[in-house]
Amino acid sequence: MENEETKTVPKSWAMVGGDGPRSYAQNSSYQRGVLNVVNELMNEGIKETLDFKSPCFDSSNVCTFRIADFGCSAGPNTFLVMEKIIEAVEQKYHAQFQNSPPLEFQVFFNDVTTNDFNTLFKTLPLYQKYFAAGVPGTFYGRLFPKSTLRLAYSSYSLHWLSRVPEEVVDTKSPAWNKGIIQCSGTAKEVAKAYSAQFKTDMDNFLNARAQEIIGGGLMVIITLGLPDGILMSQTGAGIFNDFFGYCLIEMAKLGVISEEKVDTFNLPLYYSSAKELEEIIKNHGHFCIERLNMMNHPMMKRKIDVQSHISQFRSIFQGLLEAHFGRDDVDKIFEYLAEKLAENYDSVFNAAKHQHVEHFVLLKRNIN
Amino acid sequence: MENEETKTVPKSWAMVGGDGPRSYAQNSSYQRGVLNVVNELMNEGIKETLDFKSPCFDSSNVCTFRIADFGCSAGPNTFLVMEKIIEAVEQKYHAQFQNSPPLEFQVFFNDVTTNDFNTLFKTLPLYQKYFAAGVPGTFYGRLFPKSTLRLAYSSYSLHWLSRVPEEVVDTKSPAWNKGIIQCSGTAKEVAKAYSAQFKTDMDNFLNARAQEIIGGGLMVIITLGLPDGILMSQTGAGIFNDFFGYCLIEMAKLGVISEEKVDTFNLPLYYSSAKELEEIIKNHGHFCIERLNMMNHPMMKRKIDVQSHISQFRSIFQGLLEAHFGRDDVDKIFEYLAEKLAENYDSVFNAAKHQHVEHFVLLKRNIN
Repeated sequence: MENEETKTVPKSWAMVGGDGPRSYAQNSSYQRGVLNVVNELMNEGIKETLDFKSPCFDSSNVCTFRIADFGCSAGPNTFLVMEKIIEAVEQKYHAQFQNSPPLEFQVFFNDVTTNDFNTLFKTLPLYQKYFAAGVPGTFYGRLFPKSTLRLAYSSYSLHWLSRVPEEVVDTKSPAWNKGIIQCSGTAKEVAKAYSAQFKTDMDNFLNARAQEIIGGGLMVIITLGLPDGILMSQTGAGIFNDFFGYCLIEMAKLGVISEEKVDTFNLPLYYSSAKELEEIIKNHGHFCIERLNMMNHPMMKRKIDVQSHISQFRSIFQGLLEAHFGRDDVDKIFEYLAEKLAENYDSVFNAAKHQHVEHFVLLKRNIN
Repeated sequence: MENEETKTVPKSWAMVGGDGPRSYAQNSSYQRGVLNVVNELMNEGIKETLDFKSPCFDSSNVCTFRIADFGCSAGPNTFLVMEKIIEAVEQKYHAQFQNSPPLEFQVFFNDVTTNDFNTLFKTLPLYQKYFAAGVPGTFYGRLFPKSTLRLAYSSYSLHWLSRVPEEVVDTKSPAWNKGIIQCSGTAKEVAKAYSAQFKTDMDNFLNARAQEIIGGGLMVIITLGLPDGILMSQTGAGIFNDFFGYCLIEMAKLGVISEEKVDTFNLPLYYSSAKELEEIIKNHGHFCIERLNMMNHPMMKRKIDVQSHISQFRSIFQGLLEAHFGRDDVDKIFEYLAEKLAENYDSVFNAAKHQHVEHFVLLKRNIN
């Protein structure tokens, strides 16, 4: 079930697979760090908003509870989260139906087609409490039959755009992001293009999920964002990205990589404000916002060494960089970045006055 | 959702993954050869036995039609079959409900956890008519929530036992299969042990599917078998396996591979008779046999060159042989086998008076 959207999503944006030292599986402790906070918010949210006695829930077979993780990567964080969600759902179910037969859970792990599902499947917990399935494909299109999911989850995924806005890498456009590789927030035309792409992507995501999630069903979104009024280039992550862009330009000047490739490279990432997120969801109209919390990541201010930072960054962006610059240049890029980071440690890691945030959003599918 | 059964299934029995020259994907033309015959039988069977107006079908959401392929391997045969099944189901649906909204199909591709799902997902047809999902795990245990499948399919998979019966590789047992690596049918104790394992496995398979398939739902099984009264060792496939066993023994005598490893090696395969299959299904009691046909494979008598035969054999058994003999010895084994096959071409490929058959079984889940 592919549509126009899904065809435009490059196949290279999966995290690094396997479980080797460069894999996402071994480099996702930052993402795991926030899980305790998230689990508490989810637990509370499920307890207060999930209602097994809602008329929609009764109309189909209540015994199978289907959950999907949109953007699960190759594990292992997704397994920990799914377990916690199931615990919370079971508690709510038993509170509402004391003597009913136990629920059966089916958990769908979704990510792009090039995601390493083989590693995901091989590392599934041996005694999981659910029936597991993998679903390949972009979540900006439909992935499930109508009204079959009761709970959707997506973390650290929706800040990935389906593509870089064309204008920002078009050297003839007024929105050309010259010398910068991200939506730093300073150039208005660039910010407008990124924001429009984010809105289109979010609308596609919400449209697809609105069809797939049963009325009364829940959706948890955790995504990277910015505090209101703060620009990306003022945050630690933004300063790092700008520094990475500066390194690419230097490498092009040295003739190590192609200047044209640097000019046409931008990160397909967008950190939204809570206000922007709220507006998109409210305008869409099929989901009710039950919670919208801003979280400061507990690991945000930890002291980090250059090599760990490079490893984490590489596990996320290697596929994307390889697709743009070619495999051979990627090693050179990371070597150069490591060298320059070591020389400029303080100005990159200790200069930021602000930090990005994590948005925690809990939505309920309207019954209609 | 693992159980005792699933723990005993070695992880090495997946077909060779990827799409290289040694992959199952490139060496499954034999299996594909029978599909035209199968498609016709399935088409007829679905038309005559699938009933959307049965009370069970109405009780849950009729709009989603879930199909599972148990033992799909890494493709591409499974895609062709799923497409044909969907066509037949759609025709029947439209014949019964002229003006109803179209069905939505969800297809689950199941195989063991070590199957190459990455290749399967990457080679999914770009515009398939269904929502696709991969389900890792042995089909001798539960893989789906209760009453959620409407059609199950399994081809060239159920002749794979969950394990080699212990007795036949126990040098102290009266059922020790000395000097032979298969259930050739000549030694009674060996045949009894293999037959008992097949019955246990089939019972486990039917038990799991009986829970997963909705009342009135269908199951198509295509499996390798024997004509009544014919022994495995009298068939072309049996003669080849015996020859392979002879080669292993010769290699052990030459000191190339370990004698102890040859003594404890047997193929976890069982070719059942139609009578045996029928008895197991009838005794099980949850499925009604709608069709039980014996097919002679159109490619059975084709002239085949040694290298093609080795490639096909290797794409199926490499994982199993590596797990038993170790990776280094497997290359040697296939080199030796190729050499000996070339020397003994006539006695191996032209000696058989009989051939194995394919059983086509169409079952309907009882409504109870």
